[in-house]
Amino acid sequence: MADFNYETDVEVRFQDLDIAGHVNNAVYVTYLEEARVGYLGDVLGVTEPEAVNAVIANLEIDYHRPVRDDTHVTVALRTLEPGEASIPMEYEIRADGAVAATAETVMVTVDFETGETQPLPDSWRDRIEEYEGH
Amino acid sequence: MADFNYETDVEVRFQDLDIAGHVNNAVYVTYLEEARVGYLGDVLGVTEPEAVNAVIANLEIDYHRPVRDDTHVTVALRTLEPGEASIPMEYEIRADGAVAATAETVMVTVDFETGETQPLPDSWRDRIEEYEGH
Amino acid sequence: MADFNYETDVEVRFQDLDIAGHVNNAVYVTYLEEARVGYLGDVLGVTEPEAVNAVIANLEIDYHRPVRDDTHVTVALRTLEPGEASIPMEYEIRADGAVAATAETVMVTVDFETGETQPLPDSWRDRIEEYEGH
Amino acid sequence: MADFNYETDVEVRFQDLDIAGHVNNAVYVTYLEEARVGYLGDVLGVTEPEAVNAVIANLEIDYHRPVRDDTHVTVALRTLEPGEASIPMEYEIRADGAVAATAETVMVTVDFETGETQPLPDSWRDRIEEYEGH
Repeated sequence: MADFNYETDVEVRFQDLDIAGHVNNAVYVTYLEEARVGYLGDVLGVTEPEAVNAVIANLEIDYHRPVRDDTHVTVALRTLEPGEASIPMEYEIRADGAVAATAETVMVTVDFETGETQPLPDSWRDRIEEYEGH
Repeated sequence: MADFNYETDVEVRFQDLDIAGHVNNAVYVTYLEEARVGYLGDVLGVTEPEAVNAVIANLEIDYHRPVRDDTHVTVALRTLEPGEASIPMEYEIRADGAVAATAETVMVTVDFETGETQPLPDSWRDRIEEYEGH
Repeated sequence: MADFNYETDVEVRFQDLDIAGHVNNAVYVTYLEEARVGYLGDVLGVTEPEAVNAVIANLEIDYHRPVRDDTHVTVALRTLEPGEASIPMEYEIRADGAVAATAETVMVTVDFETGETQPLPDSWRDRIEEYEGH
Repeated sequence: MADFNYETDVEVRFQDLDIAGHVNNAVYVTYLEEARVGYLGDVLGVTEPEAVNAVIANLEIDYHRPVRDDTHVTVALRTLEPGEASIPMEYEIRADGAVAATAETVMVTVDFETGETQPLPDSWRDRIEEYEGH
């Protein structure tokens, strides 16, 4: 199984906590997004938020353990083989080094004017191949 | 296929929107939570947020269409057959009547002191059976 | 002292609560925003979020009492006499009818291309005068 | 005028941005909270979120400039002379080194059981005096 090449730190905010003192389940999805936006910028060269012509079509998370305020959180991300207009990604949310959640998303490239899917930019495909080796 | 017996309205907030003017993908998870918390109160009789001794163990969402600020959103929810210490739930997020997302969660009852799973309260099991017919 | 002519309901979300079970102080600001966006739409006729060429320049809140999950929240809003490029607004956040917070904002109309302030649209000035009587 | 002794970094999240690509006005309040929670931990020695027996009674912000996704944000904080049951704080939110907002809060120590104000812990008063020189 391939390793994760990309990893980013996420700061837990007080407001991320729910009434039990644990990071709310929806906030994990925001942590995934932070890693994905970082990957889009650092690996795919998409530095303007407006330029992210892509949406999440599917998301799955397995929650393994609670995350608290003082936890050091990192999110590891890798892309699998892209499709014509989609990029599957896998994630690990790590809390003080232990896996707190695993997740998968499928991101689809769209034309926001028409709402239709559109093929991945060649530059994205090239950079993914270079970075991930597929 | 069984119908959804439970449904709740959700108000889209301006802050739910991302840079494209669409409700952010993580916020859909919050909409699911609003329906679930409503169900816990209205159907299972759990009215104190502190009393929700349960966590989300798994979540899956399929995003079908964007939701905007002026959209009327409802979330439909039904529980499937409960396990020993878990309640599977299915959802539809509906935007102006059309399905904007479908989702599933598995909620697990835990003892927050020990972190261990614990059996569903009998009262929950009874009320689910009465409400859902299983 | 003039009455509040405009009022809107806000649904408290489970995720709005902090670890003490109270609505987080930053979320009150989101409640104000919901009332303001509603006013912009209902009174000033600004129905596209993208068309809100205005920013908040100043905000002040006095917190009077905690708000909990089961609280019925309404936000009352009125505009004071507009300036050349600014609209001062006053708010009451009401929880089950009691004042939970009072607030004031100053909203400034700007040209997002240049970042410069620009005069209030005449249509806004007319509608405010008609609605508020000043 | 006294300098700011305490400063903390805040990561701008993609979800903090509104439709204009700027950090939403309510999120600035969350940035203040991150600095305040950091100060409570680092300076006052309050490391458990549950142990923060204090609420915000008043908040004022002046917004000077927009903050975007790629901005490096720091929040500087200092406490002024504490009262019997209150701590006034001043803040600067800095974006790439420039002042993006200035703010003041008054935090009041309360007994969450009774809802009544209670005097500042002596340990807090001592640590503030040691750290701030008043």
